[in-house]
Amino acid sequence: MQYMFIENFKVRDYECDMQRIVNNAVYQNYLEHARHEFLCQRGVDVGALAKEGLNLVVIRAEVDYKRSLTSGDEFYVGLNFSMQDRVRFRFEQTIHRKSDDVICITAVVLGTGVTTKGRPKVPKEIVEKLTS
Amino acid sequence: MQYMFIENFKVRDYECDMQRIVNNAVYQNYLEHARHEFLCQRGVDVGALAKEGLNLVVIRAEVDYKRSLTSGDEFYVGLNFSMQDRVRFRFEQTIHRKSDDVICITAVVLGTGVTTKGRPKVPKEIVEKLTS
Amino acid sequence: MQYMFIENFKVRDYECDMQRIVNNAVYQNYLEHARHEFLCQRGVDVGALAKEGLNLVVIRAEVDYKRSLTSGDEFYVGLNFSMQDRVRFRFEQTIHRKSDDVICITAVVLGTGVTTKGRPKVPKEIVEKLTS
Amino acid sequence: MQYMFIENFKVRDYECDMQRIVNNAVYQNYLEHARHEFLCQRGVDVGALAKEGLNLVVIRAEVDYKRSLTSGDEFYVGLNFSMQDRVRFRFEQTIHRKSDDVICITAVVLGTGVTTKGRPKVPKEIVEKLTS
Repeated sequence: MQYMFIENFKVRDYECDMQRIVNNAVYQNYLEHARHEFLCQRGVDVGALAKEGLNLVVIRAEVDYKRSLTSGDEFYVGLNFSMQDRVRFRFEQTIHRKSDDVICITAVVLGTGVTTKGRPKVPKEIVEKLTS
Repeated sequence: MQYMFIENFKVRDYECDMQRIVNNAVYQNYLEHARHEFLCQRGVDVGALAKEGLNLVVIRAEVDYKRSLTSGDEFYVGLNFSMQDRVRFRFEQTIHRKSDDVICITAVVLGTGVTTKGRPKVPKEIVEKLTS
Repeated sequence: MQYMFIENFKVRDYECDMQRIVNNAVYQNYLEHARHEFLCQRGVDVGALAKEGLNLVVIRAEVDYKRSLTSGDEFYVGLNFSMQDRVRFRFEQTIHRKSDDVICITAVVLGTGVTTKGRPKVPKEIVEKLTS
Repeated sequence: MQYMFIENFKVRDYECDMQRIVNNAVYQNYLEHARHEFLCQRGVDVGALAKEGLNLVVIRAEVDYKRSLTSGDEFYVGLNFSMQDRVRFRFEQTIHRKSDDVICITAVVLGTGVTTKGRPKVPKEIVEKLTS
């Protein structure tokens, strides 16, 4: 499969839980970090926008857990981006374990922008940077 | 709305991120904790099962983020449980902010049991405890 | 022992790691949450101060790990506060497991205030609220 | 300064809190990950040992917070190891920000081994692997 962006990771022991596998919430951290690195590469800095009063937020996440990662596993997150509609970002993300290229997670994450007062706002420059 | 189980929480500051709202992955922690407390109340101890070689795992999560929680917010997770089919647990979970009873998150989480060797296994006693 | 402030907790499963005990970094979360709740009770809101450009930060932590907490344990953090000197807060914190009142953690945490530009700043009103 | 082991990192946005700097507990995660990678390189696998009933645990941590890391910062953890005495490991760890080589954190962490029943145990082979 072809991705617009790939981010490499290695499981850290503190990310594993009593089941000795990566805790299910931690995959959301991995997925978020990959999205932010993609955005950053396109010139969209989530932290800087937050300071200016615009929060890029997740509005829906669908995550399928197919295989578990465990201590020491190396993996990457592949990411494709498109506009779901005029105001919603769509990220398709897949986590591949490197040792055997098995798919561990597939996810569709929808996001948008909101002001600190809760009003929706998706500046055109951002859309242009992400879709060009 | 009526729930089979309710768990109360208060946002802790370290759960908020640069956007000064609860980080999206942290809601998964809240949802998991509510599920485990429900299971525990029904006599199903996720940690003890893990020790015996049976992991209760999430296989799919659909989460809709409707409103953000922030520093100091009190909230509760309401939970309903059913069997999606013979081997899959279905949790419907909703996060309500207490100050105004606004719904912040709705989620459907599917789970199952797997042995440490990766084989599916859902003991009948567990199903009985959860559905009785 | 007598404390100026006590905060109650219960271990959540996602806080336990592969050793099936609370991960050592998570105790820092517990200690921070207890400090922030104490500060909040005294009218010092860490989040609101951050928004206004003043960060209350930790400058030194000494933590002794005496016993481990595990899945489901109930415990409380006892806290005493004093000024170490004119610009440094001193928190003495102890984690007690409730089932047997065994001490699990003792900690001394020093903090101070810094502006977002990195300059030290400890407003007199804050000191008064905390020591009165 | 010379280190026996160095581990490279980059701050992830979800590790930053409302103050827009890395949350103080997260540094413990970084320090732990660097220790485990060092141990792993020496043939000591913390996860595998836990499975066999031996937990390598922290018994004391002294952490000095000198500068804050923030969103996107690249940094490394330098580590030196010695035996504090016959049964206690001593890790001296320093976090350097890469952009200007400023020291952000210095830490001394003491650890030991305990069986799942809580009895101290530091196998000679482990000490040999770490000090050779």
